[in-house]
Amino acid sequence: MSNTYGTLFRITTFGESHGPAVGVVIDGCPAGLEISAEEIQVALDRRRPGQSDITTPRKEEDKVTILSGLFEGKTTGTPIALVVNNKDQHSHDYSHIEHAFRPSHADYTYTAKYGTRDYRGGGRSSARETVARVAAGAVAAKLLKQHGITINGYVSQVGSVKLRKHYSKLDFSKTDSNKVRCPDGAIAARMIGVIEEARNSLDTIGGVVSCVIQGVPAGLGEPVFDKLHAELGKAMLSINAVKGFEYGSGFEGVKLHGSEHNDQFYTDEQGNVKTRTNHSGGIQGGISNGQDIYFNVAFKPVATILQPQQTINDAGQEVTLQGKGRHDPCVLPRAVPIVDAMAALVLADFMLRSRMSKL
Amino acid sequence: MSNTYGTLFRITTFGESHGPAVGVVIDGCPAGLEISAEEIQVALDRRRPGQSDITTPRKEEDKVTILSGLFEGKTTGTPIALVVNNKDQHSHDYSHIEHAFRPSHADYTYTAKYGTRDYRGGGRSSARETVARVAAGAVAAKLLKQHGITINGYVSQVGSVKLRKHYSKLDFSKTDSNKVRCPDGAIAARMIGVIEEARNSLDTIGGVVSCVIQGVPAGLGEPVFDKLHAELGKAMLSINAVKGFEYGSGFEGVKLHGSEHNDQFYTDEQGNVKTRTNHSGGIQGGISNGQDIYFNVAFKPVATILQPQQTINDAGQEVTLQGKGRHDPCVLPRAVPIVDAMAALVLADFMLRSRMSKL
Amino acid sequence: MSNTYGTLFRITTFGESHGPAVGVVIDGCPAGLEISAEEIQVALDRRRPGQSDITTPRKEEDKVTILSGLFEGKTTGTPIALVVNNKDQHSHDYSHIEHAFRPSHADYTYTAKYGTRDYRGGGRSSARETVARVAAGAVAAKLLKQHGITINGYVSQVGSVKLRKHYSKLDFSKTDSNKVRCPDGAIAARMIGVIEEARNSLDTIGGVVSCVIQGVPAGLGEPVFDKLHAELGKAMLSINAVKGFEYGSGFEGVKLHGSEHNDQFYTDEQGNVKTRTNHSGGIQGGISNGQDIYFNVAFKPVATILQPQQTINDAGQEVTLQGKGRHDPCVLPRAVPIVDAMAALVLADFMLRSRMSKL
Amino acid sequence: MSNTYGTLFRITTFGESHGPAVGVVIDGCPAGLEISAEEIQVALDRRRPGQSDITTPRKEEDKVTILSGLFEGKTTGTPIALVVNNKDQHSHDYSHIEHAFRPSHADYTYTAKYGTRDYRGGGRSSARETVARVAAGAVAAKLLKQHGITINGYVSQVGSVKLRKHYSKLDFSKTDSNKVRCPDGAIAARMIGVIEEARNSLDTIGGVVSCVIQGVPAGLGEPVFDKLHAELGKAMLSINAVKGFEYGSGFEGVKLHGSEHNDQFYTDEQGNVKTRTNHSGGIQGGISNGQDIYFNVAFKPVATILQPQQTINDAGQEVTLQGKGRHDPCVLPRAVPIVDAMAALVLADFMLRSRMSKL
Repeated sequence: MSNTYGTLFRITTFGESHGPAVGVVIDGCPAGLEISAEEIQVALDRRRPGQSDITTPRKEEDKVTILSGLFEGKTTGTPIALVVNNKDQHSHDYSHIEHAFRPSHADYTYTAKYGTRDYRGGGRSSARETVARVAAGAVAAKLLKQHGITINGYVSQVGSVKLRKHYSKLDFSKTDSNKVRCPDGAIAARMIGVIEEARNSLDTIGGVVSCVIQGVPAGLGEPVFDKLHAELGKAMLSINAVKGFEYGSGFEGVKLHGSEHNDQFYTDEQGNVKTRTNHSGGIQGGISNGQDIYFNVAFKPVATILQPQQTINDAGQEVTLQGKGRHDPCVLPRAVPIVDAMAALVLADFMLRSRMSKL
Repeated sequence: MSNTYGTLFRITTFGESHGPAVGVVIDGCPAGLEISAEEIQVALDRRRPGQSDITTPRKEEDKVTILSGLFEGKTTGTPIALVVNNKDQHSHDYSHIEHAFRPSHADYTYTAKYGTRDYRGGGRSSARETVARVAAGAVAAKLLKQHGITINGYVSQVGSVKLRKHYSKLDFSKTDSNKVRCPDGAIAARMIGVIEEARNSLDTIGGVVSCVIQGVPAGLGEPVFDKLHAELGKAMLSINAVKGFEYGSGFEGVKLHGSEHNDQFYTDEQGNVKTRTNHSGGIQGGISNGQDIYFNVAFKPVATILQPQQTINDAGQEVTLQGKGRHDPCVLPRAVPIVDAMAALVLADFMLRSRMSKL
Repeated sequence: MSNTYGTLFRITTFGESHGPAVGVVIDGCPAGLEISAEEIQVALDRRRPGQSDITTPRKEEDKVTILSGLFEGKTTGTPIALVVNNKDQHSHDYSHIEHAFRPSHADYTYTAKYGTRDYRGGGRSSARETVARVAAGAVAAKLLKQHGITINGYVSQVGSVKLRKHYSKLDFSKTDSNKVRCPDGAIAARMIGVIEEARNSLDTIGGVVSCVIQGVPAGLGEPVFDKLHAELGKAMLSINAVKGFEYGSGFEGVKLHGSEHNDQFYTDEQGNVKTRTNHSGGIQGGISNGQDIYFNVAFKPVATILQPQQTINDAGQEVTLQGKGRHDPCVLPRAVPIVDAMAALVLADFMLRSRMSKL
Repeated sequence: MSNTYGTLFRITTFGESHGPAVGVVIDGCPAGLEISAEEIQVALDRRRPGQSDITTPRKEEDKVTILSGLFEGKTTGTPIALVVNNKDQHSHDYSHIEHAFRPSHADYTYTAKYGTRDYRGGGRSSARETVARVAAGAVAAKLLKQHGITINGYVSQVGSVKLRKHYSKLDFSKTDSNKVRCPDGAIAARMIGVIEEARNSLDTIGGVVSCVIQGVPAGLGEPVFDKLHAELGKAMLSINAVKGFEYGSGFEGVKLHGSEHNDQFYTDEQGNVKTRTNHSGGIQGGISNGQDIYFNVAFKPVATILQPQQTINDAGQEVTLQGKGRHDPCVLPRAVPIVDAMAALVLADFMLRSRMSKL
């Protein structure tokens, strides 16, 4: 079941980095949603390798094909299968890692779990799997858009360069105006510098994606185990390289007193329920309260580096390994559409689940 | 489905803070496990209110009854139902919050979602629900113990007082030697001071629980969506008042380069696979690698404060509300057994799931 | 997961025949449904042992207690826990079956599966587990009633005595007017004779429960795997002693030609879509078409007979075993409320699921 | 979720009869299973249209492609995606049913449920979806074969021509020796006659597939809701055109007394536990007892007939409709591999689930 996500708006992904294709089956999308391959492609293009000189120079088109679930441009309520063929699946030589376990990769753990692994480019553990998530997320985002919900992820930290502005001061329309996807141009420039430096030293660097979800009505989310932020957390933590998740006041909020942290309710002039502060991050008791939802996602530095590293092989012997090929010096710019996609999938699921709350 | 957690080792909890009882049904525990009500009670007693002067002075025994699933002291493979009766369920007057939405509580969001709410003591949104988790967690922990897996949660931060020692320098047998459950006595004393100060100012304070899981074999966890750390994250974020989760290098790790962050493999003298560092936190690609798993969980300050606060009622009018009764000035000491329980439930589930990986 | 049924309206049952209690947790019932313990008790009383001289003379009150999920007489959207204590759980001596496998019971198979079993009265494999289903079914039935859906099960066959009248000629208000629960008095009398004969020969006899569901709107059910009749079939086959399920034209329909079997659509005077015949049993492609749903459920004769039988013990040795105690000579009369309950649970689940079909 | 089947060995199918492709994702197949596209193709070829003059003359190759989950000829534990392209998806004119509801098809019910439907050849409600099931079933069957479990479906009734021989008297190697897939040549000839008669009268006819599963160890299946026969029943009832399911003594068994119906246990000379009769059909309390499992599945006559029929259109007006194109006069011969596939999927799932029963 580990390849399925969601309760009512459910996706099942498949595919290895160097198999014939990666893809996804969406089950549970309501009938009547207008969606096209072109709209899905837009999301995939934001994730595509080779989009700038601070991402991997691999050239892949990642062109999506819709195999089922649409009729005359609209969803029919049946499963939507989306497939992206892998280009050049045989282009590389992976014999150097056939028996060696790359440090901080999943080579060793897959072998421990399954007794085997597809060693070509990481196989199923490759971030190439997120192609499927981004494709499915585009369908979810279209569903949300119809309900006025928007999702804006952006890079807020690369290495030690951190965007400290409150999100309300940012112009999200500028997120894609630079290659690092930080809506603040000055900070973006410094981030790019850090990435280039890492790339030039044959190294990699980590960072943080922040995300703001707006337009969510009060009442989405489930109490107890499937709290809205618990599912957001799981969804984000399931993305390759993620090490942490916090929402609202997060880890900093633990230093506050209740009297400082509590968000007082008031009614605005239009009669809407609002809170004067939003330490809650738009979620109380696991359920949305109508205020903005915002959260941070920590990404570790990419494990593949183009330097020699000590490790062991599957016979337990020490070996030296050096990354080959074309890799991202920093995953952050391409992580933004993945965070957006997972957030959309979580929200779409809860939107459907909320239909069951009342008689 | 929001009241069920787990895939193979599954728990379903029920009960409101002021209803007749809270309880849990465990489905999927293998037959043959020796477990007694007394063992479960030990865990519940760590969570019990009234255990010290820095927790709520409410006196509740929280005595567990086993309704099913055991025969002659062992599990039979059938569902294990555990029930804890609520004492004094009619003891309080909750009329002041019948119509008012307490700030940073779930009153407003439950009403938005369900059109109604059980307003007595928070009803289902009360942390009293975690009684059920702790009871179930004790069964899971017993299962893990048979496989040599131990879980040690402890308070590592209260307000701004932070335990900075590496966990390997701590003596977990001292965690329960003080009332704040921090294994370092000196730091514990300072934490207790911070809590007492908050209590005396009719205020509350947040903090962090850290947790170390040892003895986990390589190979637990599932790739893609149900990564071991993604489930740990969801489980922790589903606990009342939690705002963040990080494992291994966490949010700090984003500042590192890949060459610093990568954990090199080696084979120790006994022939075991080990890593020289453990930024991975014992998990790679969502699957345990046999090293220690460690993570942090951020808890916000308790929302109920004994000071007047501005809020609104269900007619949208501004009202002043003041917390009544007996409440925790800091949830951290009592959160430790809850974190332990959820970690045990996650691990037990993955231990069963790992039985399916190979032919 | 074998103790949970349903996708959105979900029940999890627990309890052994001679443990402290049997019970059920209902998760997913929408908020706002008015329901009382008294209404649930009415359903349990139809299932209760000792209700007539053709059922087991065991006296059990089967009194239900509601532990959670209701507030001021209405559901709140949180889990509803219902518990029925077992009376006289220590009243009998079960040492004769501690090591022997009763023929056509689950003693041998439970031991094969779990390596152990609670041998007192069948433990979890006892039909006493259906107490929990009937209690939950009463809540589901109340939900359905609000949407005009009614369920009428009745005994249509005992041994070779078969009610051949079409269901439309029956008066369901007469089902409970006799102790065998057949709405046709003359046939009922003959059925009772067959049961008495079996009882007097220390034997047992099988039969069929038929069931008619009316008022179902078109559009309930899911295509492909969770077809409405597939879930009805699973639900019925999950009841103890059931050997077969057929709906609409059933096994007899296989003899027909398509030209005879097809149900022609027409529009009635009120503008409703109807079919001229109903071989489809109200379901087409797994989805309700608005016509009556009807089906048959085959029950084998009760396995416990008060005659000596040859079998083996857990050492593989041949032994002679004789049923003791008070047992049903025929399960059919008490099976009717169980069939009704499972049908209600299936329909309630699909009613909720249908909320997700369209945008 | 209606497009996913199975708990641990899970399949998710997708595709419409006239979309680009149908396919399936298998999640949960253990790593290390040797399987090839050729082996899957063998199963698909048994289901293929155009295989004889008593099936539809449509020519479709139904060639399977494996998109993921295999490496060097063996499963890796990751999802196995299988796709079969639809040939000639634009070859027909379906405008005559764009607005009309075909009698006893799912046109009306899909429209009621989804507000729309893909009317080309039935869309998702077409039995073409079973291509995906048969492909997945071949993988499950390979897994079972490694454990000595064999599944033998065969046609036991067409119209009123019924094979009355006990299955133990049949030679299953002869099932595919004739075009109707009945292992008794004389009865097969009569069945073929009935089908040809139906075809020549532009009509269709129903029938029964029987199935025998051998080599199942004791202990497979789950108590309570997911009984082995309940899941078999659901799986069979989820196949297009199925109206009934019975196992073991089935509907006939209701006439028996307990003393006749009970299966006495004995130990054979090799020390194996056996039963002298097998009215239980190899399942007791929902769990396999090691004896043969056998069951019957009733199929209604195909709804598409090449005669004019009265029905209504989506405006509620009466219209006359006549089937076009190339259709099966009887679905039974091609239903055998589908029954086999679903049985394999059920058994594979329970085989994995049984790994969790004991400590």
